[in-house]
Amino acid sequence: MYYDNLTLLTDLYQLTMMQGYHSSGIAERRVVFDLFYRRNPSGNGYAIAAGLEQAIEYITELAFTDRDISFLERQGIFTDAFLSYLRGFQFTGDIHAIPEGTVVFPNEPLLQVTAPVIQAQFLETALLNIINHQSLIATKAARLVEAAADDRVIEMGLRRAQGPDSSIYGARASIIGGCTATSNVLAAELFDIPVRGTQAHSWVMGFDDELTAFRAYAKVFPGNCILVADTYDTLNSGVPNAIKVFGEMREKNSDFRNFGIRLDSGDFAYLSKAARKMLDDAGFPDAVIGGSSDLNEMLIRDLKLQGSAIKLWGVGTNLITSGDWPAFGGVYKLAAAEDESGNFMPKIKISDNVEKITNPGIKKIHRFYDAATGKIKADLLALQHETFDSGREQILFDPNATWRRMTLPANSYHVRELLTPVFIGGQCVYDAPSVMEIQAHCIHEKSTLWDEHRRLVNPHVLPVDLSEELWELKERMINEMQ
Amino acid sequence: MYYDNLTLLTDLYQLTMMQGYHSSGIAERRVVFDLFYRRNPSGNGYAIAAGLEQAIEYITELAFTDRDISFLERQGIFTDAFLSYLRGFQFTGDIHAIPEGTVVFPNEPLLQVTAPVIQAQFLETALLNIINHQSLIATKAARLVEAAADDRVIEMGLRRAQGPDSSIYGARASIIGGCTATSNVLAAELFDIPVRGTQAHSWVMGFDDELTAFRAYAKVFPGNCILVADTYDTLNSGVPNAIKVFGEMREKNSDFRNFGIRLDSGDFAYLSKAARKMLDDAGFPDAVIGGSSDLNEMLIRDLKLQGSAIKLWGVGTNLITSGDWPAFGGVYKLAAAEDESGNFMPKIKISDNVEKITNPGIKKIHRFYDAATGKIKADLLALQHETFDSGREQILFDPNATWRRMTLPANSYHVRELLTPVFIGGQCVYDAPSVMEIQAHCIHEKSTLWDEHRRLVNPHVLPVDLSEELWELKERMINEMQ
Repeated sequence: MYYDNLTLLTDLYQLTMMQGYHSSGIAERRVVFDLFYRRNPSGNGYAIAAGLEQAIEYITELAFTDRDISFLERQGIFTDAFLSYLRGFQFTGDIHAIPEGTVVFPNEPLLQVTAPVIQAQFLETALLNIINHQSLIATKAARLVEAAADDRVIEMGLRRAQGPDSSIYGARASIIGGCTATSNVLAAELFDIPVRGTQAHSWVMGFDDELTAFRAYAKVFPGNCILVADTYDTLNSGVPNAIKVFGEMREKNSDFRNFGIRLDSGDFAYLSKAARKMLDDAGFPDAVIGGSSDLNEMLIRDLKLQGSAIKLWGVGTNLITSGDWPAFGGVYKLAAAEDESGNFMPKIKISDNVEKITNPGIKKIHRFYDAATGKIKADLLALQHETFDSGREQILFDPNATWRRMTLPANSYHVRELLTPVFIGGQCVYDAPSVMEIQAHCIHEKSTLWDEHRRLVNPHVLPVDLSEELWELKERMINEMQ
Repeated sequence: MYYDNLTLLTDLYQLTMMQGYHSSGIAERRVVFDLFYRRNPSGNGYAIAAGLEQAIEYITELAFTDRDISFLERQGIFTDAFLSYLRGFQFTGDIHAIPEGTVVFPNEPLLQVTAPVIQAQFLETALLNIINHQSLIATKAARLVEAAADDRVIEMGLRRAQGPDSSIYGARASIIGGCTATSNVLAAELFDIPVRGTQAHSWVMGFDDELTAFRAYAKVFPGNCILVADTYDTLNSGVPNAIKVFGEMREKNSDFRNFGIRLDSGDFAYLSKAARKMLDDAGFPDAVIGGSSDLNEMLIRDLKLQGSAIKLWGVGTNLITSGDWPAFGGVYKLAAAEDESGNFMPKIKISDNVEKITNPGIKKIHRFYDAATGKIKADLLALQHETFDSGREQILFDPNATWRRMTLPANSYHVRELLTPVFIGGQCVYDAPSVMEIQAHCIHEKSTLWDEHRRLVNPHVLPVDLSEELWELKERMINEMQ
C-alpha cells in the first residue's frame, strides 16, 4: 500500500475550510502565508533550511484522483460543487523560498506563499511536514559535523527512523547538513549521494569463529574492509584477529585498502586509544577506527576531548530522529490578505504568548554581511518595498529591546536577499540543485557564521531585526487589536 | 521522486554481507533471526506490536528492478554473479510474528525469520524500520489513551511528523493504540480509519471579525461545528461569539449538531472550566470542549486531575514523533544457524552489557493468564519443542534473579502461544485484519493487563521468564564463550 500521490496528505480541516471559502464566495481572494519556525532545534545557534525540492515536487504533482474524490464524497460532509472544484484543482500562485542548505534563523519565512486563499490554505500541512522534517535533520547533522570537526560523520539510522520516508529524506537532509555518506541504499539511489557500509555482528556470528569470519570478509571485499571488532571481546579477540587478517591481506593482495575496525560497544575513549596503539604497533597506522553506538554531538565532542582515536563516526538514532528535539516546530501563518479592492492588507495573529505574535505584511529577508570577513552581522525582516543599499549607513535594532542598536557604517557591509522565486503564476521557475551542490552551499553558509554562533551549547544568538517600518506596523496593529 | 519500491530500503552492509555469503558458498545455509526490543518506550509497562501488515507488503513486493541493479553495479563493489543472483531474489523462508495490537514485553521476538542466511540478513533493516516505527507510535497512543481515560484522543501530528510516511503509518499506529480518529486524510483513505477536523486560526483571521468567521463556518458545516475559540481572546471574544452562533444555529437549523469549541493556547484547566460554565449557563451543556497544544500524556493526566472540562484531546507532535522517546530500539539478532548436517544450532551474542546478551535457540512465547480474571500472570520464552499444559502445576522463575519464583497451580491458569505463522516457504499464509479490527484486539489486549502494569510512571514490570531448559542452554553457552 505505498501511495504514489500526496495530494490527500493534509489535515481534514484544510479541506473543510476550503469548502468554507468555496461556498462563502471568497475562495479566490489572494493571501500571503509565511512558513517560519520559532526556535532553533537542540538549542543550536541556527538552522539549515531543507526540503524545498520535495515541496516543489509535491506542488507540481498535486491532483485529486477519482479515488480521492470518492473517498471525500463518502465522508458525507462535502458538496458536489466543492468536489467538482477539487477535480480541477491546481496551484496557480507564487512561492518564494530560501534555498536549501542556507543558514536560517527563527521568524524568517523559509517559504512565502502568495495565492488564492483556497489554494494557499491547502498547501499548509504538507509543506510543513516536508520542510519541518528535513530542516530538523539537516540541522542535527550540522551539529554532529560541528562536533566531529575534521572527522567524517556517516548517517546510519535507517532501522530506527520513523518509517521509510523518514529514513530516505532524513538521509538526504543529513548529507545536506554535512554528513559524508549514508548507509541507506535507496536514498543513495534516489538522490545520488554517497553510500557506505561493511559488516555487522551477525556476519561474525554466522561463522564458527571470528578469525574465519574476518578472513572470509576481507577476501570478498579487499578494497573496503572495515571489520566489526566487538562481537566477542574487542581488545583480546577483535583487534588481534583484525590485525592478523590485515597482515595476511597486505602480504598477498595488492587491492587491499580502505581497511580498519569499527567499535560498536564499550568505552570508546579507552577502546579506541588501546586499539589505535595495537594497530600502530602492528604496522597499520593507516587502519581507520570507526565508532557507532548511540552517539550524539555531545558524546562525540567529549570523546574527542578525551583523545579518542575514532575518525569515522556512524550516527543512527540521534541523527535520523533528532533524538533530543524531535520536531522542528515550523508554522504557517497568514501575513496578508487582499481587501475587496484587491489591495493586500497586513494580517497579524495575537497571542498571550508574546513570541507567538506574528510579523504582519509581505516581507523580505535581508542578510547583512561584514564586508571585511564575509561573516553575517544581522538579518533584517523588512516590508516588500523597502530597499537597503550598502553605500548607506544602516542602523539595526532588536525588536524585543529597541534600545539595543547596531550601526553598520556605509560600505562596511554588503547585503543579500534570502527569498528566491520558486513558483510564479503556478509555474515552477526554480532549477533545484543536486544534493551534493546543496551540501557545498551549506558548507559555505556555515563559514559565514562567527564561531560564537556555531557553539553547540548556549550559542550567541544572531539578531533577526525588524525594519523600522515593519516594527511600527506591528506595534500599531497590536495596539489596534487591544 | 516518490519511490514505489522499497527493495533498496536497506543498509549497504546488508548487501555487502550478502555478497560475502554468496561468494563464500554459504548463502543457502538456513538461520533464524529474532526481531525483539529491550526497553518499553517512555517508561511504559508494555508495548503494542504494530507494523506487521506493512512488513508483509514489503516482503511480498521485494524485487530488484533494472534500475536498482544498475545503481548497485555503479558502486563498483558487487560481482556480476551476485548482481545476477539479486535479479531473481525472492523470499522463500518462514516468518512467525505476534499479531498487531498485541501487548508485548522486552526480549520477546515480535518476528522470527527462518530462511537462508542471504535472505534473512537482507530483511533486517526494512523490517526493523517498519516495526520499530509503528510499535513506537502505537505504544505512545496507548499511553495517551490511558491518560485520557473515557475521553477521546485524536491524532493530529501530520505537520510535525518526520516526513510523509511517518505521518501516514503513524496515524495508522495511533488508531491501533486507541486513538478514535486522525486528522490525516491520506491515512484515512489508505487504511479506512476515521478522520476528523474543522477549523484553524487562519479561517478566523481571513474574515474581518471572529463572529463573521464563526457564522460563515457554521453555515457551511452545521453538522460538525467545532469553532477554534482562542484566536483573539478566549473568554472575552471566542466563547461569547461561539455561544452567539450556537444560539442562532439551534434556532434556525435542524441539522445543527456535533458542535463545540477548541482551545489551542492558554491554561487549559482554567479556560476549559470557565468556558464550560459559560456554555452551560447559555444552555449548551452538549457543546463539547476540545483542547490541542503540545499535549502529552502527563499533561492530560494532570489537567484531568485539576477538573479540566476538555473531553476531546488533539495530540500532535508528542504522539506522532513519540517526543520523549523517539525510537523503539528493536533489534534483529541471530538465534540459530544450521550446521553442516542441516541441524539448527543455537547462537548467542555476548556483550559486556548484560542486557544485550541474546536468548539463544529457536523459541516460542507462551503467555500465562490467570484463569479467574483473564489477566496476564507471566510470559515465558521456551524452546520450540517445549509444551505447557494448564492441567499441570507450573513453576516460573525470573532469569535475572532465579530465586524469584512464581507457582501456578494446575488449572489456575490458561496459556496461549503468541507467535503466529505469517509466511511459510515464502508464501504469505496470514490474513491481515483491518486497522479497526486491530484496534478492537488491542483494546481487549490492554484489558488483560493488571492496573499496576498500565500505570504511566514506574509501572510494575511483568516478568518475561525463560523456561528452565532455555535458561540452562543460555548459561552453558555463556560459560563456553568465556
